[in-house]
Formats: sequence, structure tokens, C-alpha cells
Amino acid sequence: MGVEIERKFLVPDGETVPDGREFAVRQGYLVLGPEGAEARVREQDGACSLTVKRGTGLVRGEWETPLSADQFADLWPATEHARVDKTRRIVPLGPDEAVVDTYHGRLAGLRTAEVEFTDPGRAAAFTPPPWFGPEVTDRPEFKNQRLATADAPPLP
Amino acid sequence: MGVEIERKFLVPDGETVPDGREFAVRQGYLVLGPEGAEARVREQDGACSLTVKRGTGLVRGEWETPLSADQFADLWPATEHARVDKTRRIVPLGPDEAVVDTYHGRLAGLRTAEVEFTDPGRAAAFTPPPWFGPEVTDRPEFKNQRLATADAPPLP
Repeated sequence: MGVEIERKFLVPDGETVPDGREFAVRQGYLVLGPEGAEARVREQDGACSLTVKRGTGLVRGEWETPLSADQFADLWPATEHARVDKTRRIVPLGPDEAVVDTYHGRLAGLRTAEVEFTDPGRAAAFTPPPWFGPEVTDRPEFKNQRLATADAPPLP
Repeated sequence: MGVEIERKFLVPDGETVPDGREFAVRQGYLVLGPEGAEARVREQDGACSLTVKRGTGLVRGEWETPLSADQFADLWPATEHARVDKTRRIVPLGPDEAVVDTYHGRLAGLRTAEVEFTDPGRAAAFTPPPWFGPEVTDRPEFKNQRLATADAPPLP
């Protein structure tokens, strides 16, 4: 496994997000276990998958398999307790790209932008564009698992 | 959901189990969550499946979908922490049937017999055949989840 560093920012109301390819994402958690363990199904841009994550730090593991639409339909009802429904836009940012998520349903009003780096130096040197708001990388209430079970968007 | 009552017994060493159709079962837990929540993959008699269970009592839910052999192979490595490998034999018992599991690996030496009933009266009136040993229906250490993470067979 390579190093993977992600920084996450809010995109405030009123900011205009640059154009980019856009598609629907819905994901739901089948089971949320201790220490970040999870089994999650996702439909993204029409493709479905199942992902399992478990462990922390050096022993963290991740496994994934594609699902057919029928399999996704069998499992989706099991995620009713922990779902996220959003529109994702991929915005080029020079050599990087921002993954901008506009949330729907309970989380309507929330927009986030994530940028992924493979190099810690590049991550630290990254200059957010003017339409990025406050950074929330280290705020647990903005983690995917927490958002999936939140009743409303976390306060900025 | 219908009522489903299961009674589980040990099958002591030295007892001879009557003939029946036999096949291999291996199952592993992807994620073990709180209050019995689980996501499990199983290969039984050559057919693979994924099952999600969550909740207790009246709000208990169960969802299942078939998996291809490739999907099972993608996910099986995620279960290394919690697996069970056994040979299952289906033994007719008059109007009922016993599901007899002979465990392998860490649990070698353990044999159990389960009988499932749809009627509480029938479950209570059931007379175990002479080759059944002590009943373990209410002993938590003999539940499937617990067996999957046990280092050795529980004491009888």
C-alpha cells in the first residue's frame, strides 16, 4: 500500500465551483464496527461496489469487489441506518484535482472538496484555490462514517 | 419474518452420526459490529453468498445476496480474523432434520447438531436422539460469531 494523504475543505455557500465532470454517488454502510471497521456499498457513476475496511495505522486493510445492480439492490436496504447521497464533481486544479461533493437529503447544504496527494511534501505545500473554505481534514464530524449517521450537516 | 427457533447440541466424541448428504462450508466475517451486527461471506456446497445481519429482537434484519466465486475470492482475505471451516451433514430426524457440523482447524474436535423449528411447541417437545450430547442453545460461547474468533473449541 502506498501512502495516501487527503485534505478536506468546506466549500461555502455562494462560492461558485468551476466546471468538471459530474456524477451521482450514493453509499451506505452495511455494518459499522469498532476502530473504523466498515463494510460499505457504493453506486458511483452507475458502477456498484462493496468495500471492507478494517484496522488502523500500519495494519489497516482494504478489500473491494464490484457488485452487479441486482446485488446492490439486495444489499442497499441494509444501509438504511447510515447513508450518504451526493453529487460529485471532479475539478482539475493544475497537477491535482478537487473532488467536490454536494450532499443531498439530511446533509443538504453541505459541500466539501477533497484533494488527494501521494507525497507528504506536496500535501503540505498545497495552496487551496479561493473558492475553498475552512479546512476540516482533522475534524472527526466530517469523516465519511460520521456524516453517514449525522442528522444534519455539522457546523462549519 | 416468521418465527425461527433453533436448538443446538454437542455431538460427543465417539458418537456415530447417521448418514446424510455432506458438503463443505466455510464462512468468514468481514465486519463484526455492536449488538450482533455482522457482514459475513459464506461458501456452502460450492455456492457463495454475502449476508448482513443487524439489530436485535423485533428490529432484527437480515439481507443476503449471492456472490460469484471471483467476488468471494476478493472478499475472503478480509475475513482472516474471524473464520470457520466445517463439514456439514444433513441428517433426517423424522419430520425434522439435524444439521451436523464437524469443525476443522482451530476448532477441530468440535461437533454440533442444530435443529430448526417454526413452531415453539414443536421446539419444546423435541426429543433429542441418543447420539446428541449436552444442549448448548443458550451458551454464548457456542454462537457462530464467538466460534469464529475462538482459539479453540469451548469446553463442553
